[in-house]
Amino acid sequence: MARTAIWTSISEALTSDIAEGRYQPGDKLPTEAELSVRFGVNRHTVRRALRAMAEAGLVHARRGAGVFVALTPTDYPIGRRVRFHQNLAAAGRSPGKTPLLTETRMAGEREREALGLEKDAEVHVYEGLSSADGQPIALFRSVFPAARFPELLTYLNETGSVTQALGKHGVSDYTRASTRLTAKSATPTQALHLRIAERAPILRTVGINVDGSEAPIEYGHTWFAGDRVTLTVDNL
Amino acid sequence: MARTAIWTSISEALTSDIAEGRYQPGDKLPTEAELSVRFGVNRHTVRRALRAMAEAGLVHARRGAGVFVALTPTDYPIGRRVRFHQNLAAAGRSPGKTPLLTETRMAGEREREALGLEKDAEVHVYEGLSSADGQPIALFRSVFPAARFPELLTYLNETGSVTQALGKHGVSDYTRASTRLTAKSATPTQALHLRIAERAPILRTVGINVDGSEAPIEYGHTWFAGDRVTLTVDNL
Repeated sequence: MARTAIWTSISEALTSDIAEGRYQPGDKLPTEAELSVRFGVNRHTVRRALRAMAEAGLVHARRGAGVFVALTPTDYPIGRRVRFHQNLAAAGRSPGKTPLLTETRMAGEREREALGLEKDAEVHVYEGLSSADGQPIALFRSVFPAARFPELLTYLNETGSVTQALGKHGVSDYTRASTRLTAKSATPTQALHLRIAERAPILRTVGINVDGSEAPIEYGHTWFAGDRVTLTVDNL
Repeated sequence: MARTAIWTSISEALTSDIAEGRYQPGDKLPTEAELSVRFGVNRHTVRRALRAMAEAGLVHARRGAGVFVALTPTDYPIGRRVRFHQNLAAAGRSPGKTPLLTETRMAGEREREALGLEKDAEVHVYEGLSSADGQPIALFRSVFPAARFPELLTYLNETGSVTQALGKHGVSDYTRASTRLTAKSATPTQALHLRIAERAPILRTVGINVDGSEAPIEYGHTWFAGDRVTLTVDNL
């Protein structure tokens, strides 16, 4: 019978450590040097074990930063009602949002088209970083027609919630009309915000929310860290 | 006023060439050496222009192969009825499938769970490469319960169509119960099949199709080349 390769027993030991919770999702593993000492092998062997674990999706290396335990992806439904706060709470994660930019400016061509606006119409823009349990999971940019929601940015600032800010403007409910999904590589800026490797896979969604009379009220882009979120579509 | 950088005028000239159809989606651009001669500049300047075009998503470089005109992504709806042939035809693209593997084997744990099978149940597996206008767009693996569809692989071989093969087994219609989406990096094998760069972004969907009485009949994985397909979800 073939002898089990040494790196296999190392990756099995580390996999047990993760399974038993000694290293939690998001934790940094010990360095290659430290693992070499622990297992009494050279760094080449440690690297082979870590590579196998990375291929299995258990850990991921961030250049210059170390090897981290992969996070269990958060399930994120994109059905008729897409609500960041509720979606994350339902997945047992604690949601957070960090605003990066709020501004009012002229609508771009695609924004006008998505929101059904005239030339020279203005939009409110809300950009930020979404997190789950303190771990960044997505960057977002939401664009709203400024003429219809003049005080939206003030309300957003007061409440921290898009749903509540729209509510103060008389929108009691809104639904997702359509979502478009593509896979992208993280730009350097996105990688920095999301704390992922440059060019790591990003799941980009582009969605339009409409009010009760199907009028578009929000045009949103979200860039999810590919290994931290699984989007789900249920048709039942 | 600042003088326009030379590389800008080069990228504008090449962008016009693409816009006017002199280079079609999927075409290889001339080499850097050829472009240096055409524009009378050094290769560094050509490279700067191509990099800007790549950042704009107009072209993409494949290591060792050259720079190619990016394809317009095919819209691919993932609603209640997901049919590869119809989806592509609706997008004005000519669909194609190349089988890579058909086999009957023991179901894995996730396959049993997805299809509601007992331990030791067998599944038929159908793997292949999907293309649009001759360009590879996705790798797929479909798994079917073997006991319920004993002749499925024979029918697939005869008809080349999952829908028709299921039809011969008495399934007159089936619908998509759920889809899960994640962004991944292409493995070397996937990159080779899809003719994309290693670690290029991949959009992976995992879906379950059910028959008229909601019994699961197909458990499918699809790995879409990120820059060639936009998945769409419509809720209206």
